[in-house]
Amino acid sequence: LPKIVDHDMRRRELSQAAVRLIARDGLDAATTRALASESGWTTGVLKHYFVGKDDLLRHALLELEAVNRERLAVAEGEEATGYDALRAAIVAILRDEPAHAKVWIAFLSRAATDPAIGREMRRGSRAWQRRWAELVRRGQADRSIRSDVDADEVAIELWALLSGLRIAALFNPSLTRRAGLGAITLLERIRSVDAMAP
Amino acid sequence: LPKIVDHDMRRRELSQAAVRLIARDGLDAATTRALASESGWTTGVLKHYFVGKDDLLRHALLELEAVNRERLAVAEGEEATGYDALRAAIVAILRDEPAHAKVWIAFLSRAATDPAIGREMRRGSRAWQRRWAELVRRGQADRSIRSDVDADEVAIELWALLSGLRIAALFNPSLTRRAGLGAITLLERIRSVDAMAP
Repeated sequence: LPKIVDHDMRRRELSQAAVRLIARDGLDAATTRALASESGWTTGVLKHYFVGKDDLLRHALLELEAVNRERLAVAEGEEATGYDALRAAIVAILRDEPAHAKVWIAFLSRAATDPAIGREMRRGSRAWQRRWAELVRRGQADRSIRSDVDADEVAIELWALLSGLRIAALFNPSLTRRAGLGAITLLERIRSVDAMAP
Repeated sequence: LPKIVDHDMRRRELSQAAVRLIARDGLDAATTRALASESGWTTGVLKHYFVGKDDLLRHALLELEAVNRERLAVAEGEEATGYDALRAAIVAILRDEPAHAKVWIAFLSRAATDPAIGREMRRGSRAWQRRWAELVRRGQADRSIRSDVDADEVAIELWALLSGLRIAALFNPSLTRRAGLGAITLLERIRSVDAMAP
């Protein structure tokens, strides 16, 4: 039988290897050569997937985003209401590995001096805020979230709070247990009064 | 008359020059030589203030912290209640220059690979959480903040939210106007019901 290669799947596996590499050794160390060593593929094979180091970094960043987007999609599929889906997605994202938070911070820092990474970070932050706002609107439509909150404002606050909580957890591990707290009190604030009835 | 030099004052001026340098050129560029060029002092004079590059970076980080600590002290001195002081301090900190947020993110990233910076970041984040908690307790003592909120939990949420909002403002400048929002809704949540009466 001919061997069928799922190129998208392999690119994601390689992107995941790039994320591990960056978490361990930092962005500067993430070269095609280092990725070859990490992934077990030759630099010749890697060239089919990434056009140089910048493209490799971009795909590592897209991979971080994809992991959380999948968590959100799972929550949306499994939970009955917008409120429950929002809560499940937040809990899943806050349980993320600390290594991912480190990689994300490295990209935040890089964005200040690398315009291509800066563009990706802006696009990513806007895409997330749109997704959170959609989920809040779904909750407003099914009456699990208060109709008098502004979905876009909640989305911005949620994005900021999740970002800050992941940073706080890195520097203050004893707070990790409490890390969901701010997000949960935010949730309580937007929860519909009807939904709180038994 | 003999010339009196206020060494602490000069060290702060030099630390401020280091912050400007880092904001413009990044952490790697912040050498004693570059600081000499930025500040107009010789490297010989700078050696009296900083023991090498690591010490220079540490003082730049302490300077960022000092600026916000002074804002908090001003708010505490000027405002009549703990709630008003908390609100004034938050507003002042959120109006901070975007350049400071960039420098802070550079240090966040550096903390992953530089143990000395990591220790300073942990110490700094804990010191801030203690200061916010003290201010919340002051508000609870003067009855401007609800007695049934946990001061330490509010402090953690506030630290995370301010961190995230400063990041959000960097990547989404159109949101800057709304950037105080999350902090303000958090404030509304902890405000004493008594204090809301006219």
